Amino acid sequence: MSTTRADPASLDLMFPQELISLEVSALLPSDLQIRPLASTDYKRGHLDVLSVLSIVNDLGEVAWVNQFHAMRATPRAYFSIVILDKASDKIVGVGTVFIERKFLRGLGSVGHIEDIAVDKSQQGKKLGLRIIQALTHISENSGCYKTILNCSDANIPFYEKCGYVKKENEMAKYAPERVHNAPKL
Amino acid sequence: MSTTRADPASLDLMFPQELISLEVSALLPSDLQIRPLASTDYKRGHLDVLSVLSIVNDLGEVAWVNQFHAMRATPRAYFSIVILDKASDKIVGVGTVFIERKFLRGLGSVGHIEDIAVDKSQQGKKLGLRIIQALTHISENSGCYKTILNCSDANIPFYEKCGYVKKENEMAKYAPERVHNAPKL
Repeated sequence: MSTTRADPASLDLMFPQELISLEVSALLPSDLQIRPLASTDYKRGHLDVLSVLSIVNDLGEVAWVNQFHAMRATPRAYFSIVILDKASDKIVGVGTVFIERKFLRGLGSVGHIEDIAVDKSQQGKKLGLRIIQALTHISENSGCYKTILNCSDANIPFYEKCGYVKKENEMAKYAPERVHNAPKL
Repeated sequence: MSTTRADPASLDLMFPQELISLEVSALLPSDLQIRPLASTDYKRGHLDVLSVLSIVNDLGEVAWVNQFHAMRATPRAYFSIVILDKASDKIVGVGTVFIERKFLRGLGSVGHIEDIAVDKSQQGKKLGLRIIQALTHISENSGCYKTILNCSDANIPFYEKCGYVKKENEMAKYAPERVHNAPKL
C-alpha cells in the first residue's frame, strides 16, 4: 500500500482541496481521508458506493470521465466529495453539493446536497454526518444563503442532528418513457 | 401597444423559443404570451413577480443582467421562462427549471423546478399550471429521467394535478449569518 496514491496533490480534482473543512477532516478515523472527487475515481469504486443508493447503470470509465469533466467545466456548480480508505485506496463514502444561482435574495445562491452514500462496511463511523458537514461547509463558504436536501421520513432525525430542519415536501414526476427505471440505452 | 416589443425574435433570450411547448402556448389566454426569459426582462417587472414568492432584494438592472448572462453561459443548466401580458408588455408569471447532472442512472440528469410565481392580478387563469407544464416539457425533452420541486403542504394538491407525486421531505439549513433573512450587502 502506498500513501502517494491517496495524496490529493497528485490527483486531478474536481475542485481545490482547500474547500474541504479541516475540522471535518480531523474528525475522521485516521485510516480514512476526505477529498474532492478525482478524475481517476471511477477505478476506486465511486459507482460501487453510489449503487447502495439507487440504480447506477454503469456506462464505463470513458463516459464517467466525460461526465466528470462536464461537471468541472461548469463554473461554481458541482462539488463532489469522497471518503477514501487509505489502505485499500477504495472509496467508501460519496456526496455532492451543487450550487444553484437565483434571481431572488439579492441574486443569491442555494446549495443542493445530492446522492450521499456510505459503504455498508463503514457504518457506525459517522461518515454520513462528516459528508453532510463537509458539503454544508462548501455551500456556506461559497456564499449560499441556504443549503437544502431531500430525504425519506426515516432519515429526518439524522439530518436534524446535522443541523437541518424539515421545510417543505419534495414532489417528483418521472419522465414517461423511463418511469421508475434506468434509461434505455 | 406594439406587438414588436413582445416578439421573441427581437429579444436576447436565455434559450431558444423552440424549447417552449407549442401545446402549452396554445392553452394560454390570447392576451398572454409564454417565452424564455430575455436579457431586458428586468424592465418588464421580473423581480416584481418574484416578490410575491420570497425576499427579492433588488440589486439593480446591471447586477440582474450579469446574473442572466452567468446563468446562460452555463451549458444546459438554467431555463427561466416568463408569461407576458402583451398589452402592457409586463411579466405576470415566472418559473425556472435547472438541470443537474448526476453519476447515477447512466450519468442521468434531473430537472429541478424553482421559483414559480404568478402576479396576483392573474389568478384563476391556470398560469401556474401552464408554467409547470412548460418547465416539465423542457426538463423531459432535455433528457431528464425525472423532474422534482419542493412545495408546502397546501400546494400538494395543485402539483398532483400537474402530474407530480409526493416523494420525500425537503430539509433546509440557513447559513448562520443570514438566518431567514436577506443577505446583508
